[in-house]
Amino acid sequence: MPKANFQSHRIGRRKFIGLGAASLGALVLQPAAARELGDPRRSYGERSPFETSARTFGASSTPATGSSRTPLQDLYGTITPSSLHFERHHSGVPKIDPNTHELLLDGLVERPLVFTLKDLRRFPSVSRIHFIECAGNSGREHEGRPGQNVQQSYGLFSNSEWSSVPLKTVLEEAGVKPKASWIVAEGADASRLSRSLPLDKALDDVLLAYGQNGEALRPEQGYPLRLIVPGWEGNVNIKWVDRIKVTDGPFMTRDEAASYTDLMPGGKARWFTFVMEAKSVITHPSGEQVLDGHGSYEISGLAWSGRGRIKRVDISTDNGKTWTDARLDGPALPKAATRFSLAWKWDGGEAALQSRCTDETGYVQPTREELIAVRGLHPGPDGFNHFNGIKTWFVHEDGRVSHV
Amino acid sequence: MPKANFQSHRIGRRKFIGLGAASLGALVLQPAAARELGDPRRSYGERSPFETSARTFGASSTPATGSSRTPLQDLYGTITPSSLHFERHHSGVPKIDPNTHELLLDGLVERPLVFTLKDLRRFPSVSRIHFIECAGNSGREHEGRPGQNVQQSYGLFSNSEWSSVPLKTVLEEAGVKPKASWIVAEGADASRLSRSLPLDKALDDVLLAYGQNGEALRPEQGYPLRLIVPGWEGNVNIKWVDRIKVTDGPFMTRDEAASYTDLMPGGKARWFTFVMEAKSVITHPSGEQVLDGHGSYEISGLAWSGRGRIKRVDISTDNGKTWTDARLDGPALPKAATRFSLAWKWDGGEAALQSRCTDETGYVQPTREELIAVRGLHPGPDGFNHFNGIKTWFVHEDGRVSHV
Repeated sequence: MPKANFQSHRIGRRKFIGLGAASLGALVLQPAAARELGDPRRSYGERSPFETSARTFGASSTPATGSSRTPLQDLYGTITPSSLHFERHHSGVPKIDPNTHELLLDGLVERPLVFTLKDLRRFPSVSRIHFIECAGNSGREHEGRPGQNVQQSYGLFSNSEWSSVPLKTVLEEAGVKPKASWIVAEGADASRLSRSLPLDKALDDVLLAYGQNGEALRPEQGYPLRLIVPGWEGNVNIKWVDRIKVTDGPFMTRDEAASYTDLMPGGKARWFTFVMEAKSVITHPSGEQVLDGHGSYEISGLAWSGRGRIKRVDISTDNGKTWTDARLDGPALPKAATRFSLAWKWDGGEAALQSRCTDETGYVQPTREELIAVRGLHPGPDGFNHFNGIKTWFVHEDGRVSHV
Repeated sequence: MPKANFQSHRIGRRKFIGLGAASLGALVLQPAAARELGDPRRSYGERSPFETSARTFGASSTPATGSSRTPLQDLYGTITPSSLHFERHHSGVPKIDPNTHELLLDGLVERPLVFTLKDLRRFPSVSRIHFIECAGNSGREHEGRPGQNVQQSYGLFSNSEWSSVPLKTVLEEAGVKPKASWIVAEGADASRLSRSLPLDKALDDVLLAYGQNGEALRPEQGYPLRLIVPGWEGNVNIKWVDRIKVTDGPFMTRDEAASYTDLMPGGKARWFTFVMEAKSVITHPSGEQVLDGHGSYEISGLAWSGRGRIKRVDISTDNGKTWTDARLDGPALPKAATRFSLAWKWDGGEAALQSRCTDETGYVQPTREELIAVRGLHPGPDGFNHFNGIKTWFVHEDGRVSHV
């Protein structure tokens, strides 16, 4: 870390604390009279009124349908506060009484079963930190009309600790028949959103989650029960789940036959492209932020991979000409957000900031151009999905940061 | 896991889903007319109205002074929701404007410095998951008047992801003088609560935290800046910190000279007993919960150590006669809450549940009797501190769980 620079920055703006203060024997600097008793305790806390970070969403004539985006530029560490987890609803957030909610497990099983929440809580539980990313996240980057800030372009991404019973546990309880090969999961929202998943994945690491960051799931995240499908596109993480049917093939539901497909050059569409490939984005400095004079800054962001752990992140400040290995903060967990950072001394000139991640399979995040060379520029019925190209933020001489 | 038991339990209460439902081709079980559009998106989410878990605290004629307790019996995983993090205030929660809050670093340093929050954000950041436990947590267990439930006896314990600049970084920026050996940290609350810490610890893993679980610190947790002193008693994790003075000895502040001491047999008191030793408690089943008939349950709880990682947890259901190795859920992080669990088949008889943890230093959680043999039964000026004895919950034949 370039120590002298922080120092000179601070001296320039605020001056040294003179010897008078430095040699004070007493601890109290302010007169005691200025101090008043603060607020009392409360049973359920709230954030400071000075904190106003919020999910954003556009106006809509059908407000129960749509998405809201996580303010990644304002967040610290890796956990997304539950109040700021992105939303994507197809028919609004249902009000569900957890005492009457039930999960039906049927289809190709020996014993069709119904579980209450209380039943599920009696099974062995696991808590795992995993990201959820909408397939359409940063599709506008693919399209070539990037958002003004990281929230607009990348805010359909969040990361939580999910507490759950493994889906494998309840499938084994019901007894999966030999010819079973898929499951279909369905939600209790008005649209009964449903998706098919290969049985192999269901028996691998899929979770039936009832907890989020220590407390019950939030309503927008599927209260009281949702599927967590680690590393796979957000849409398959069925919220408000109340039915799982074991089948011998995909059900070809609306959201896998029409939407959530990738239209390729030549006019054919890719289906069942579940995995969210390795991706990273710098969240600070990022679009619409302003650097407060030249000197030392931390470049920081998030990286993740639907195939496992992030192994390394490289950062460029010269538009990809040269790269420096970033520091990964804390243990990189599989299929979870990993915070990366790099100390950077800004000399006051123009800079183009990029991050490029590599996951434990050796996969390297591609450039937008590499991605378009394969997939073309043909939006599907719901726009572009599965964009994971390298993102550039441009630092102007006056400190403003903008999209490229 | 004893599979057959879940099955029989459910069949007994709810019966099989008949062939009619199991062979349904359509996914929709309920008539579509019963489904209504749900709630629209919102900028900052809240929990379901069905969720009412809360911090608890007694009535007080001085409401700005006191504590509130985390409902450990209701929580999942390891992260404590920020809204439910325990509180301990000595003069209420101050309202602090983060734009004017400053940290003064002075004393035995080459360059006394003042930092704004913006200054601190320019340093390299780290995010770490650590517990905070009040020294007095479960002191009533020591005293022999245990709480009715785990919240009453153990609720002065919480666990969060803290985002921060290492204190070492800013101390190096100021330049610590050779004869320095301690620091004193002071908070901006009306009581200006202050504590001394050895310089070795300050240069080891102490953090100046501005983030908690992804967003800014909550007001009750020290907004906008607090000290995190991993593994040490809660009181030294100075909230609302606005001054750190480097010294050549402890300052003997009120909270280290009078309070937060341990009165030993013989009348002498232990001072500066900073470390919270390894401890565990079963949170489910725990006091005032009721088991819903015999059969399979998960015994689950939290373990932690102020000296590092939890290495193992053993569980007894027969009052400590026999022990079984519990499963640790996820990576056991240093000086952080670790969730443990064990599948248990309750036969409907009386049972006495205990957990006993071992940390990576080899330290084994003692019994209450072993602890009293050393420390006696003499409350200090603020009651009993640093109790970490093994806790027993008693399961009655009717399923009620009570303290012992």
